[in-house]
Amino acid sequence: MASKAPRQTAERILASALGLFNRFGEPNVAATMVAATLGISPGNLYYHYPGKEDIVSHLFDQFQHELKALLPAARDVKDLEDAWFFLHSLFELVWRYRFLYRDLNDLLGKYRQLEQALKQVLSDKHAAFLILLNCLSDKGWLTQNPTERDSSATQMLVMLTWWLSYEYVQNPRHALEDANAQGGVSRGAQQVLGLLLPYLQAQAKAQLLALLQMYNAPPCAEAT
Amino acid sequence: MASKAPRQTAERILASALGLFNRFGEPNVAATMVAATLGISPGNLYYHYPGKEDIVSHLFDQFQHELKALLPAARDVKDLEDAWFFLHSLFELVWRYRFLYRDLNDLLGKYRQLEQALKQVLSDKHAAFLILLNCLSDKGWLTQNPTERDSSATQMLVMLTWWLSYEYVQNPRHALEDANAQGGVSRGAQQVLGLLLPYLQAQAKAQLLALLQMYNAPPCAEAT
Repeated sequence: MASKAPRQTAERILASALGLFNRFGEPNVAATMVAATLGISPGNLYYHYPGKEDIVSHLFDQFQHELKALLPAARDVKDLEDAWFFLHSLFELVWRYRFLYRDLNDLLGKYRQLEQALKQVLSDKHAAFLILLNCLSDKGWLTQNPTERDSSATQMLVMLTWWLSYEYVQNPRHALEDANAQGGVSRGAQQVLGLLLPYLQAQAKAQLLALLQMYNAPPCAEAT
Repeated sequence: MASKAPRQTAERILASALGLFNRFGEPNVAATMVAATLGISPGNLYYHYPGKEDIVSHLFDQFQHELKALLPAARDVKDLEDAWFFLHSLFELVWRYRFLYRDLNDLLGKYRQLEQALKQVLSDKHAAFLILLNCLSDKGWLTQNPTERDSSATQMLVMLTWWLSYEYVQNPRHALEDANAQGGVSRGAQQVLGLLLPYLQAQAKAQLLALLQMYNAPPCAEAT
């Protein structure tokens, strides 16, 4: 009978911490809470990660690694549906590491080693959006001059990075919970892609609107 | 000889706390630090504000009061220059209370009493942007259908609320310091107004671009 090899403790610690950070916010989760959740001793956890900042740092590296694997797909965007799937995948990644986005400024204040890495993340996303816009432009889907393209890429970047914060402020008790995953990801992708609507020709605009309608997400659930 | 009446201690505490929160971030400022800065005893401070959450709550009320006084000016926007000054004034207010914007999610997690008030702030800003867009549309400056108008108002809201966070991530050591006030405010207003560019007719677009150029802000200073 085939059986999976048990995951290494170090990996299990990261996975557990990610789940807790996403659920409660990184400032509200102590390393001892991660150990308790896994049923291991604090000493065992500290053997693998001497402090919470090491866990955060490893999770950030994981995130950056996955982002770097995903962004080159911007080069393969040939039409609006490709653009939709690219953005949806990006938002899925943001969702999986949403504690980074929820607590961005706080993390930056506490972990100065993230400073350069976070700047790099913003810069990489911006470059990928420029490539995506170039591809859509080359294929005749939209018309933009270089200034407009640069401005659109910045707007897409701000929207990608802070859309979940917007949903969080509207509904802090539920917006970042697992049950909101599909809706949050779809609404985010819709908002980023929606920035391009005014640059599309009539036919392309109708097509994008139909696409957004097809994958329409329900509005963010209100807190009750 | 005319002399100003001394400011009440309660007001001085608020002003001092606002300065410290903006400079160091609310999570990094204790109430005792506010008292020490003013040269008063912690007991004197606690007499006026029993805890830091009371100071935050009073500052938030002040902010909301000033916002409510400012937003109705959206009704008086007759042209693009009016829109520029409205947005510039809005960003000046955001700048004066930038600790709220820097630590939004963290504050929400800690001070649940801000939950409804913050939702109201977002909703009030969104309503004001809808009015501004209606005014510009009525005067023939831009063409949008109701869906586009609603979408633009949401985009303007996200950009207004998180632009300073974007600048902060790019340059955490200097972006929110006093020396960056003029640049940060101008770039923010430019970004929000820039969202309307693709909806403008050629002549109006040229006029807005000239306006943005006239008030052009230097790029955010890099950390050295």
